[in-house]
Amino acid sequence: MSKVIQTSALSADKFAPFGDVLELQEQPDQIINQGNCGRHHDLAKLDFGGGRAGISLFDAKPRSLPYQLDLLERHPDGSQAFIPMSLTSFLIIVASDVNGSPGEPCAFVSAPGQAINIHKGVWHGVLTPLHAPGLFAVVDRMGPGPNLEEYRLAASVEIV
Amino acid sequence: MSKVIQTSALSADKFAPFGDVLELQEQPDQIINQGNCGRHHDLAKLDFGGGRAGISLFDAKPRSLPYQLDLLERHPDGSQAFIPMSLTSFLIIVASDVNGSPGEPCAFVSAPGQAINIHKGVWHGVLTPLHAPGLFAVVDRMGPGPNLEEYRLAASVEIV
Repeated sequence: MSKVIQTSALSADKFAPFGDVLELQEQPDQIINQGNCGRHHDLAKLDFGGGRAGISLFDAKPRSLPYQLDLLERHPDGSQAFIPMSLTSFLIIVASDVNGSPGEPCAFVSAPGQAINIHKGVWHGVLTPLHAPGLFAVVDRMGPGPNLEEYRLAASVEIV
Repeated sequence: MSKVIQTSALSADKFAPFGDVLELQEQPDQIINQGNCGRHHDLAKLDFGGGRAGISLFDAKPRSLPYQLDLLERHPDGSQAFIPMSLTSFLIIVASDVNGSPGEPCAFVSAPGQAINIHKGVWHGVLTPLHAPGLFAVVDRMGPGPNLEEYRLAASVEIV
């Protein structure tokens, strides 16, 4: 029987070891545009390791729980932000590094209106929207080199 | 009577003099994640003029048409991308530069799923969502200096 991991609601505190949660803060840092807009400023620790920032769109197939996890990946040269372009939830799987391999995975489900930035080099699952459309803007590194390590799990893990 | 400007549907061609439309292309540049995700790669011409990229969230009040335009602004030191986090439309107002002042404004209405990147130094209106919630991720320049020029129109323009 495969190992089972429970999801948690995504929160900045719980996600802090892996990256940033981009969500409205209690108060905006600045009110702009004659009072018509709150700016919640500079929420992501971006790092493009000698490359440059780029914005791409990802069009991903929606998944559902339970989800069978068998692959984790990481980008050694840059952070990667995932910004949902619909008010929907997505599944986020991350893991600490233990001597160059992923440790025990953690799984989170975002609330509508939350985006994330995965820090440079953090193990994570592929993009797994839980609803259609799986349309995301992705802010990540443009530059030379593969910037990708993959790790196939010895036994798949069931995320519930 | 104020001048009246008609909106057009946002399209990459028409918007090209001012910036980039970030939208799914006819074909993805790459299929990733074992066939489950299309990557539409590097769609924005970002320029942070000696600063660095940052991601902020903007929480803007929804507006409606007709809209009275009386102010344009530009950021001389960096591009600014607006990524809607809901599948809704927003109003985009831009203008060419004529000897340091904005020329005739152009107005566009986005389709759900379209984001934009306004090129460095391009005159534009403030963020004007047409529906709630006015929640956007904004990728723009972090760095010293005000990076803001405002231009108040001598007479307001009605956008319809």
